[in-house]
Amino acid sequence: MRDVYQEQLDDLAGALAGMCTQVADAMRKATRALLEVDLQLAEEVISEDIRVDELRASAEEKAFALLALQAPVATDLRIVVSAIHGAGDIERMGDLALHVAQAARRRHPHPVLPDEVVPYFAEMGRVGVDLALKAGDVIRTRDLARAAQLETDDDAMDDLHRHMFTVLMDREWSHGVGPAVDITLLARFYERYADHAVAVARRIVYVVTGRMPGPLTV
Amino acid sequence: MRDVYQEQLDDLAGALAGMCTQVADAMRKATRALLEVDLQLAEEVISEDIRVDELRASAEEKAFALLALQAPVATDLRIVVSAIHGAGDIERMGDLALHVAQAARRRHPHPVLPDEVVPYFAEMGRVGVDLALKAGDVIRTRDLARAAQLETDDDAMDDLHRHMFTVLMDREWSHGVGPAVDITLLARFYERYADHAVAVARRIVYVVTGRMPGPLTV
Repeated sequence: MRDVYQEQLDDLAGALAGMCTQVADAMRKATRALLEVDLQLAEEVISEDIRVDELRASAEEKAFALLALQAPVATDLRIVVSAIHGAGDIERMGDLALHVAQAARRRHPHPVLPDEVVPYFAEMGRVGVDLALKAGDVIRTRDLARAAQLETDDDAMDDLHRHMFTVLMDREWSHGVGPAVDITLLARFYERYADHAVAVARRIVYVVTGRMPGPLTV
Repeated sequence: MRDVYQEQLDDLAGALAGMCTQVADAMRKATRALLEVDLQLAEEVISEDIRVDELRASAEEKAFALLALQAPVATDLRIVVSAIHGAGDIERMGDLALHVAQAARRRHPHPVLPDEVVPYFAEMGRVGVDLALKAGDVIRTRDLARAAQLETDDDAMDDLHRHMFTVLMDREWSHGVGPAVDITLLARFYERYADHAVAVARRIVYVVTGRMPGPLTV
């Protein structure tokens, strides 16, 4: 019986790590759609978001079944509750990638981004995708050093986010209010995406150590 | 034993409903700070946010204790898991009220909002506070008709949110990029605040009916 139980716990972690890969892929494609003004890629991200929602529902069901049938305690209970939180965070990351793709679609065939901010969004995309993949690794390995790394990567994202405001507020900004509004929201989507990846890693630290390394919510 | 258990479940619901009152109060004050350019009120919201975080940690502990000691199943399990989700949503509402207060503080002694958008934010604040209080009612009463009402109120918030973009994108907009960026983020904070209130109500519908009336995440 215990073996089946352990298998169920591993299965739940595997499902969450798989969701991380999925939303990393979504953000990679959404960023390319944004930067390369690629409508087809944007549509792909938009139509595939339902799969992340399904994966989340399925992960929640697994967690629910574990709670109902195995009544876990101590560390195992922390694992299951953290998985419930994690599934929510990762689904939200998928939604944020979806929002990026929707912005690309909304302005098509025009680019959303003036040329001068393209490199920043390329970098935010890269950091974001990397954070999602690292969160998946942390779920699989429960490696605390790797979990700590996500906090550093998130600082890089915060710097990029702050920098975007400096660019927008600069006297040299010549693109007017419309693109500034789009960029404000897009930069926020990337920043929140990163925050949720960090939240996933923090929950794993909590599973292992019994203590949260930072705020419970992001 | 069953009586203690029922008391614990009621206690958990009471804690969540209390959190709703707290974040409604935070958003009421934050909106006033924003509209009346009131630094002291903004500071109050900022320093009180820690209390919401503590309430959330305490609600999670209650839920955890229930899972570990009572091993609830069926509806009771749904109640506890929904409470874990709800606590997260409501804490996030507190964070969003905090963000509004921080925006008011950042620009003080200057107003964040040009006069012409003040009425919209007054209305977004009113709808937001009302949604938080209604979410608390739904937690207390599990009244499905009341839960459905939150969806309608949220539509009103979405309309206000969309309308802000129309105002910003209008040729008549004379306040430049800086205020537009502030308003874009602020409008998003109110909209997200409302989304989380709706999520809380949806989880209660799920507790009562076993079915979610909308997406699991907002």
